[in-house]
Amino acid sequence: MVGQQQVVDAAAAAAAAATTRVPVPPPKPLLRTIGGNLMETFFPDDPFRAVARESGGRRALAALRYVFPFLEWLPSYSLAALWSDVVAGVTIASLAVPQGISYAKLGDLPPIMGLYSSFVPPLVYAVMGSSRELAVGTTAVASLLFAATLGKEAPPGEKPELYAALAFTATFFAGVLQAGLGVLRLGFLVDLLSHAAIVGFMAGAATIVCLQQLKGMLGLAHFTTSTDVVAVVRSVVTQSHQWRWQSIVVGCCFLIFLLFTRYISKRKPKWFLLSAMAPLASVIAGSVLVYLIHGERHGIPVIGYLKKGINPSSARDLLLSSPHTMVALRTGIITGIIGLAEGIAIGRSFAMLKSYNVDGNKEMIAFGAMNIVGSCTSCYLTAGPFSRAAVNHNAGCKTPMSNAVMAVAVMLTLQFLTPLFHYTPLVVLSAIIISAMIGIIDYKAAVRLWKVDKIDFCVCVGTYLGVVFGDIQIGLAIAVGISILRILLFIARPKTTVLGKMPNSTNFRRMDQYTVAKAVPGLLVLRIDSPIYFANSGYLRERIMRWIDHEEDRIKAEGLESLKCVVLDMGAVASIDTSGTKMLEDLKKNLDRSSIQIALANPGSEIMRKLDKSNVLRLIGEEWIFLTVSEACYYAQQNCKIGVGMGVVQCVVDPEHMV
Amino acid sequence: MVGQQQVVDAAAAAAAAATTRVPVPPPKPLLRTIGGNLMETFFPDDPFRAVARESGGRRALAALRYVFPFLEWLPSYSLAALWSDVVAGVTIASLAVPQGISYAKLGDLPPIMGLYSSFVPPLVYAVMGSSRELAVGTTAVASLLFAATLGKEAPPGEKPELYAALAFTATFFAGVLQAGLGVLRLGFLVDLLSHAAIVGFMAGAATIVCLQQLKGMLGLAHFTTSTDVVAVVRSVVTQSHQWRWQSIVVGCCFLIFLLFTRYISKRKPKWFLLSAMAPLASVIAGSVLVYLIHGERHGIPVIGYLKKGINPSSARDLLLSSPHTMVALRTGIITGIIGLAEGIAIGRSFAMLKSYNVDGNKEMIAFGAMNIVGSCTSCYLTAGPFSRAAVNHNAGCKTPMSNAVMAVAVMLTLQFLTPLFHYTPLVVLSAIIISAMIGIIDYKAAVRLWKVDKIDFCVCVGTYLGVVFGDIQIGLAIAVGISILRILLFIARPKTTVLGKMPNSTNFRRMDQYTVAKAVPGLLVLRIDSPIYFANSGYLRERIMRWIDHEEDRIKAEGLESLKCVVLDMGAVASIDTSGTKMLEDLKKNLDRSSIQIALANPGSEIMRKLDKSNVLRLIGEEWIFLTVSEACYYAQQNCKIGVGMGVVQCVVDPEHMV
Repeated sequence: MVGQQQVVDAAAAAAAAATTRVPVPPPKPLLRTIGGNLMETFFPDDPFRAVARESGGRRALAALRYVFPFLEWLPSYSLAALWSDVVAGVTIASLAVPQGISYAKLGDLPPIMGLYSSFVPPLVYAVMGSSRELAVGTTAVASLLFAATLGKEAPPGEKPELYAALAFTATFFAGVLQAGLGVLRLGFLVDLLSHAAIVGFMAGAATIVCLQQLKGMLGLAHFTTSTDVVAVVRSVVTQSHQWRWQSIVVGCCFLIFLLFTRYISKRKPKWFLLSAMAPLASVIAGSVLVYLIHGERHGIPVIGYLKKGINPSSARDLLLSSPHTMVALRTGIITGIIGLAEGIAIGRSFAMLKSYNVDGNKEMIAFGAMNIVGSCTSCYLTAGPFSRAAVNHNAGCKTPMSNAVMAVAVMLTLQFLTPLFHYTPLVVLSAIIISAMIGIIDYKAAVRLWKVDKIDFCVCVGTYLGVVFGDIQIGLAIAVGISILRILLFIARPKTTVLGKMPNSTNFRRMDQYTVAKAVPGLLVLRIDSPIYFANSGYLRERIMRWIDHEEDRIKAEGLESLKCVVLDMGAVASIDTSGTKMLEDLKKNLDRSSIQIALANPGSEIMRKLDKSNVLRLIGEEWIFLTVSEACYYAQQNCKIGVGMGVVQCVVDPEHMV
Repeated sequence: MVGQQQVVDAAAAAAAAATTRVPVPPPKPLLRTIGGNLMETFFPDDPFRAVARESGGRRALAALRYVFPFLEWLPSYSLAALWSDVVAGVTIASLAVPQGISYAKLGDLPPIMGLYSSFVPPLVYAVMGSSRELAVGTTAVASLLFAATLGKEAPPGEKPELYAALAFTATFFAGVLQAGLGVLRLGFLVDLLSHAAIVGFMAGAATIVCLQQLKGMLGLAHFTTSTDVVAVVRSVVTQSHQWRWQSIVVGCCFLIFLLFTRYISKRKPKWFLLSAMAPLASVIAGSVLVYLIHGERHGIPVIGYLKKGINPSSARDLLLSSPHTMVALRTGIITGIIGLAEGIAIGRSFAMLKSYNVDGNKEMIAFGAMNIVGSCTSCYLTAGPFSRAAVNHNAGCKTPMSNAVMAVAVMLTLQFLTPLFHYTPLVVLSAIIISAMIGIIDYKAAVRLWKVDKIDFCVCVGTYLGVVFGDIQIGLAIAVGISILRILLFIARPKTTVLGKMPNSTNFRRMDQYTVAKAVPGLLVLRIDSPIYFANSGYLRERIMRWIDHEEDRIKAEGLESLKCVVLDMGAVASIDTSGTKMLEDLKKNLDRSSIQIALANPGSEIMRKLDKSNVLRLIGEEWIFLTVSEACYYAQQNCKIGVGMGVVQCVVDPEHMV
């Protein structure tokens, strides 16, 4: 068992340990510290590395490539990739046309605006976006939110022009917000929406979107403008005499067809084309059916006349200084942030699959640009809905070119095919929306959350219930509120644990985690698991005193050696503020009165600097600051007259045997 | 050098290390976990320990003692202690009478209410309070805030009854809030006001209080109702023709006298009585002077008639359902929280000096009770102002009995001596306020903050400027806002650092802190310094990938051995949520593609449980989870085909030599 390494006994180890003290870092120029912190806060991903590497004209090109990622892939674009992108683009166009019309109806906007929104924004994204799979289009959540908030300000039935203008304005503000967040590198604000919150939020939004479809499915002419469950159910039940069986029958048939194709392509991913084409097939079949049996006269409402031609300009419709601007601003902020959070999360997950990186801040600028341009060309809010991205990915897209192909396909539709949608029954659109939304309710994720993290589950369910029983804003407020409260509680009530010595080693570990860890007689080793800030310094002082009281009670009860020294393991204390240094000062004074020594183990450089500046270092005594817990314990045993020793040994490796 | 300990060579050490794996904690019943967490959050100080120890009738007595701390000290109260308390009580009464009148004038309330407020609330506190030094009374900040917020709703000059009723109502709400926070154990919310914020806030409040005194000092009849510097200076300058030299001369004389006594007793703490008695002496001297020279007719305004007799009831004046209730509620919340934060901080600092504990939540209940009772007996908001507590402490108080003595002294004043204050000049009251406020501006603390922690300094200065140039609410909002933003930023941008091996030991430490720490070839050891939450999981993933990129750049540039394994030191990761486990999963998948192994060192039990539940443990492989960084490095060297080895040795102590 005895190898070639040399061993040093405890005394020598202590001597060796004495040579590696914890240093107080040299003072750093203030501006450099601030600069470093700002850099780390706003440019953590060092985005301009590629630009900084080049020089002269090449640097300008690199900068251009940074802003317009298409310059990166276009030069090496191959015919094979083009073919893949054309296939993918046509596929998503066949989904985009019926979905665009459906979501525009959901948002109480003219159906044609859904098609407009699938033409211009995808072109912008093809030039500026860096995700290869994201397919741009309108989303159900934003559409519903437009109807719910803007609809109150300008009922779309009464003032359609004002309503459309408000929608453009909200889209404009959303774009400005998105681009602004990207330029100011504030992408981390979007991270305040946790994954759990997004799961709950999307499920809640999908639920209320499905409920809204009861209007179309039941063929009702009037419907509540509220989105919550109670209002919708009441509206449906009180109008039961108005239900139209024709609408219900047609709707259910198409819904079953759509869900069946979804099921098939989920089981056999190669048949994805089936589910991708199903909505268009339903629209065609439904239109033909209604045309043949004159369904519009028998209780099956249809879309009606759609104007031919591509997007007219809407730049003059923006209401930047009207009494309604605030509503548009609020709606824009909420939908903009939701669109970003969802779009970036989706872009990142697909990028993960193909192992390339999506720069969040750059994506925000792309999203912002496409919404600003969109708001001036009769489009409303666009983002990257999951269903389209999944179809795009399955169809084998290679670059954002598939978005451009989709845009061209939609443009051709706008120019030549709009009259064909005249007889498309609304109930088919409802079926398309429902089948898309059901895929979004990710109950399995909620089960996973429950298993792994109960608080995340609460965030998820709270958000869901907030959206379903309140409204979308309430749900969002709950999500952000619980999430931030959790962070604050973590800081306000950090864990302190008692460490014990692991057998046969110099390591100290939590005694509640490692049953083999043993307390060292006469010593109490405590570990603090968070930065020491104003929000927890009072708590920590009381909690540490309570640990000491408990330990002394135990010592009395068991007749052990009295407590001589408290060792604080500062390894996990990443930061400290003036309340924190004051806390340590108070603690030292308190313990002095009970003749208990205090020792610190493994403080970081920031801690050392602040302890030094605040004179707490001198108060505690530099000789009571140690590199490791075991050194602290060894020193305390030597210097605190602790009778019963314990083999706290420092291991030293012979330098000769090191390479 | 070679001692008796046995050494085990590296291979054996690895074998030994294999026996102390990081355990996955056994599942705990959900309710017990929740119960434990709630207990730790709301009862961190285990307040009922003394009660739980007893049984039967003794337990009831212990519970009663818990609620009414005077039952604890009264049974063993000695004559000597009584004598000390009487001396201290009379001393603080001599300060309380002029201060009470001054602050009531500052709050635009009838001067007599200042005396009322020094009678009933101190009695309540004597029974329920647990700080021995705190002396109850009105505060300048609360008075000024009443004038600033309630004065806008009901100008005291036009509607004095409504104004007084609003003051009682605000006091009532403040009391309910304080008692409620105490009963609900939400004391930690008060901790969200950091020490730095309180320093800045008090200094700002003192500044604007002093500025308000220009009215009295200059003998002005009209004055602005705003508190900010700009408004006050404009009001003073535009009325320069109204300045009265008599008032200025008298005021300056008394101010110099007061500041001189303060200075003396600061230099010689034994002469504290000089500064404690100075305000009363000034009032007496000023009154006599004015009476003799008929100063009230020569530009020196006096208090005028004061009603004799103790507090009338004001329970019927409370406006609990009037249009003004909301203003009173808001004022009550703000003043209540400021009163708590200041009072508890002061109580705790004096308790620290005499090494006893002040229970924050219990103090809140005491404060709440005294304000609720006070609001029904014509008192307005009371707390524990610093100046009185300091005088009380210097005068040698032993128990809260000194508060009761002060109350009796004030009651006698109310019954018999109020007519004597008829000729007290207002300018003397202004001088008393200014001299009290100047002591509160703690510029030295601001300098200390600058030295130790720049962000705390920003909080302090921001709060000060907010109070001085905006108003008290703006200052508070800035204080809480910056403080919370700091916590969120700490979580959103945690530190990650590269660790290196310390020479002659198995410890790994930060290479930027310890210049002697050396990187291990082929390995990258990273340490994460915060919990991994949704707010930072995206950042951490990118930051870790960037460390790896940098390391690979360096390796290429220096022609070193390529990177084979990344070791994450999880020792400082106190907590993880589902976004965090997802991050580790993504990281593992990312690194797998570059054929880099990932290893975790020293994860806590919560981390292990969540990694296990989320299946990330299986993905990484349990054999890649280690107790220490050195074990992880050793194992990686053995298993990742790293050519150039390095003596990473595990030290094992022979159990026979351990006690």
